[in-house]
Amino acid sequence: MLEAEVTITVPFHDLDPMGVVWHGNYARYLEIARCALLERIDYNYPRMGEEGFAWPVVEMRIKYVGPLRFGQQAKVTARLVSWENGMKIDYLIHDAASGALLTRARTFQVPVSLATGEMSLESPPELLRRLKDTP
Amino acid sequence: MLEAEVTITVPFHDLDPMGVVWHGNYARYLEIARCALLERIDYNYPRMGEEGFAWPVVEMRIKYVGPLRFGQQAKVTARLVSWENGMKIDYLIHDAASGALLTRARTFQVPVSLATGEMSLESPPELLRRLKDTP
Amino acid sequence: MLEAEVTITVPFHDLDPMGVVWHGNYARYLEIARCALLERIDYNYPRMGEEGFAWPVVEMRIKYVGPLRFGQQAKVTARLVSWENGMKIDYLIHDAASGALLTRARTFQVPVSLATGEMSLESPPELLRRLKDTP
Amino acid sequence: MLEAEVTITVPFHDLDPMGVVWHGNYARYLEIARCALLERIDYNYPRMGEEGFAWPVVEMRIKYVGPLRFGQQAKVTARLVSWENGMKIDYLIHDAASGALLTRARTFQVPVSLATGEMSLESPPELLRRLKDTP
Repeated sequence: MLEAEVTITVPFHDLDPMGVVWHGNYARYLEIARCALLERIDYNYPRMGEEGFAWPVVEMRIKYVGPLRFGQQAKVTARLVSWENGMKIDYLIHDAASGALLTRARTFQVPVSLATGEMSLESPPELLRRLKDTP
Repeated sequence: MLEAEVTITVPFHDLDPMGVVWHGNYARYLEIARCALLERIDYNYPRMGEEGFAWPVVEMRIKYVGPLRFGQQAKVTARLVSWENGMKIDYLIHDAASGALLTRARTFQVPVSLATGEMSLESPPELLRRLKDTP
Repeated sequence: MLEAEVTITVPFHDLDPMGVVWHGNYARYLEIARCALLERIDYNYPRMGEEGFAWPVVEMRIKYVGPLRFGQQAKVTARLVSWENGMKIDYLIHDAASGALLTRARTFQVPVSLATGEMSLESPPELLRRLKDTP
Repeated sequence: MLEAEVTITVPFHDLDPMGVVWHGNYARYLEIARCALLERIDYNYPRMGEEGFAWPVVEMRIKYVGPLRFGQQAKVTARLVSWENGMKIDYLIHDAASGALLTRARTFQVPVSLATGEMSLESPPELLRRLKDTP
C-alpha cells in the first residue's frame, strides 16, 4: 500500500494566540505529506495537469487529538487507502520525539478532466498503471 | 436555534493555480462565520478566556460541492446544532448571487479549562446561560 | 489621484501567540485594498490577464507602527502614486475607531506579457487609458 | 557575523493562479530562516519570552527578483547585520539548483518589554552576551 512520511518542524507563523498550531493550518501539513506520497508514483500536480486532469479535494476530515507547539517535530504519514474511483488518503500526525498520536485525518480527491471540466467516476488509467508499477 | 451569516468576497491570495480557492483556506471562512455566531451571544474568544476557557476545535469536516473563484461573493452560514457537551456548528456556503450550494462543513469544539488545562465533558454554565438569554 | 479604502475586521486566524496580527499577514490586507483600487478602473486580475498581462509585485515594504488585535476594525487605504512605468501603490492602515495610524506600506508592480513572459519597461496603454477615463 | 541557511521546498498551497509563490508568502520563508538564525544563539521566541521580551518585526522589505515555482528548492540565507539597537536581518533567497538569486529582503525587529509593554532603544544584555559567546 502506497505510503509516505514527512517531518514538519512547527513554524512560529502557524501558531495562534493559545500558542498552538491553528486548526486550519493542518491542511497544509496534510498536503505536504500527500504531495510526497504522489511524488512516489511520479504523479505530482504538474504531471496530473500534463495528463489532462486536476484532482480537487472534495472532502477533508481532521480529528485533533493533541496540540502542536512551536518547534515541535511532527511526523505526518499519508497512506493511499482507495484509488479506483478517486483517491482516498488517510493521515496520521505523531509527535516525532515521543511517538504520541496527535491528529487523524482523511482527504478524498476526484479526477476532473481539464478538457471538459467534468468530474470522472473512475480514476484515469495513468494513475492505475503508476500504482501497479510501483514496487 | 443560534445562527449567523457572513458574506465573504473571495480574495486573490486564497486562490490556487487552478484559479479556485485552495481547499485549506475554507477553514478561515468557517471561522469568520463561527466568530459572528459567537458574537451574537457575546462569547468571543477574548471573553471565553476571561471566563477561564479555551475552546479548541477538535474536529472539522468539509465537503466541497463546487469551487469558489476570484471576486465571488460567498454567503457563509453557521448554525449551532449542539451545545451541552461542547459546541457543534454546521456551516453552509452558498454563492450569494445564484444561491447555489458550494460547501457543507461541521466543526466540533470542546471547553478546556485555562487553569487546569483539562478538557471538560460539559459546557460551562456561562455558555448555557448566554444561549438561554438570547432571544 | 486614484485611491480606494477598505475596512477589515481582524480575524482570529491572523493572530500570533502575542495576540496581535502576525506581520506577514498584512500582505493580505494590502492586497484587498489594492484590488479595490484596481476595481475602480475595472482592471482586476482576470481583466489584466484577458488583456495579456500579469502584474507581479516586485517590491513590498511595510512599516509596522502599532499592532492590530482581534476584532479591531482596520481601515486600509491604497493610493496609486505612479503608473507610467509600473504601478507604485502607497498604503496606510488606520484604526477605524480612533483614527490612529498603524501601518505604512508600499508595493511596486510591473507588467509582464503573458505571451512572451517578458517584463515591460512601460505600462500598457490599456492601463493609461483607464486611468485617464476615470473621473 | 551570525548567519543561518535553510532550504525550503515550495509547497502547492503557496502558489497563486500564475503558478508562482504568492508574494505575501515569502514572509513565512524569511521567518523560518530567521528562527534558524536565532536558534544558533539559543534565542528562539519562547526563550525571548522567558527573558521578558517580545521582538516584533517593525519593518519588512522584500525585492522579488525571480519567481518561485512548485517543488523548487529555495535556499534562504539570513544574516544578522545589526544588533545593538534592535535586530536588523538581511535575507537572500537563491534557487538551490542553479544558484540564481531570486529574492533580497530585510527585516528590522525591536525589543519590547513584556512587563511594561514599552519598546526599548537598546537591545537587552542577554542578546549581546549570546552574540559575544557564539563562536
